[in-house]
Amino acid sequence: MTTKEDTVIEAPPGTPFMETRREFDAAPEGVFRAFTDPELVKQWLGPRRLTIRIEEFDARAGGTYRYFHTDVDGKEFGFRGVFHDVQEPRLLIQTFEFDGAPDQVSLDTTWFEDLGGRTRLVQRSVFLSVEARDMALATGMESGIVESMERLDELLR
Amino acid sequence: MTTKEDTVIEAPPGTPFMETRREFDAAPEGVFRAFTDPELVKQWLGPRRLTIRIEEFDARAGGTYRYFHTDVDGKEFGFRGVFHDVQEPRLLIQTFEFDGAPDQVSLDTTWFEDLGGRTRLVQRSVFLSVEARDMALATGMESGIVESMERLDELLR
Repeated sequence: MTTKEDTVIEAPPGTPFMETRREFDAAPEGVFRAFTDPELVKQWLGPRRLTIRIEEFDARAGGTYRYFHTDVDGKEFGFRGVFHDVQEPRLLIQTFEFDGAPDQVSLDTTWFEDLGGRTRLVQRSVFLSVEARDMALATGMESGIVESMERLDELLR
Repeated sequence: MTTKEDTVIEAPPGTPFMETRREFDAAPEGVFRAFTDPELVKQWLGPRRLTIRIEEFDARAGGTYRYFHTDVDGKEFGFRGVFHDVQEPRLLIQTFEFDGAPDQVSLDTTWFEDLGGRTRLVQRSVFLSVEARDMALATGMESGIVESMERLDELLR
């Protein structure tokens, strides 16, 4: 379990799961919008040291997304997926694939729980195998998530 | 492990995985077409005692599918999902949801391995939790898969 300030990430050994939890001082509608409006997504998704370019972000059932992170040397990292379900402001279900690990898709569910003006975000990812989950963790995914959550918190304030 | 004639289904206890394997006496291109052309899909998908009605079946990345099985009493069972990737004739990656278990989505990968004129089909599903996988198994999913595989084998012959 990784806990950095308010972000908790759990990835139990021997399972294909990874779960991220964090509370935000904003209503579910606002947090949900930050996950579905590409103009907001690009303000928080990913580590600060990378720039983001969103090629497509169509947050509706059957919609696809495609974005790229670029480092200071100009190296691009591409990501893509499709939305299975978009239930505003309660739930997002989508697939996720990193170009650097082709065919290693994960299924991500993001729950926006209403705490009465505040929101508990619960993001659960499941990979196709325990090995694929472990490889994703080995890329430093956790620190990227923690930093993204910090940036999202700042955006929502 | 369930083995009925040539279909092997593995669902290890305590995991969210289910894997189905079967060989077919047809080239990968033919087996792949049977999974992506709705006119062929409706000839084998599901138990024989149910009729199938395909409302949508758009087998391309970002495409959606929606179909219904109906029993002799007219009761309908709906299913839907989106295609994350369609790599002809090698691989399909799609989501799957049964209306009777809302939000319990699985991620299904179907590999079509070329055995030289024959095909080994490997279909691996991962659910959002071990409990969700166990609930899907409890619906009798395995016997439905075995019968579907038999029907597909007949269609391909």
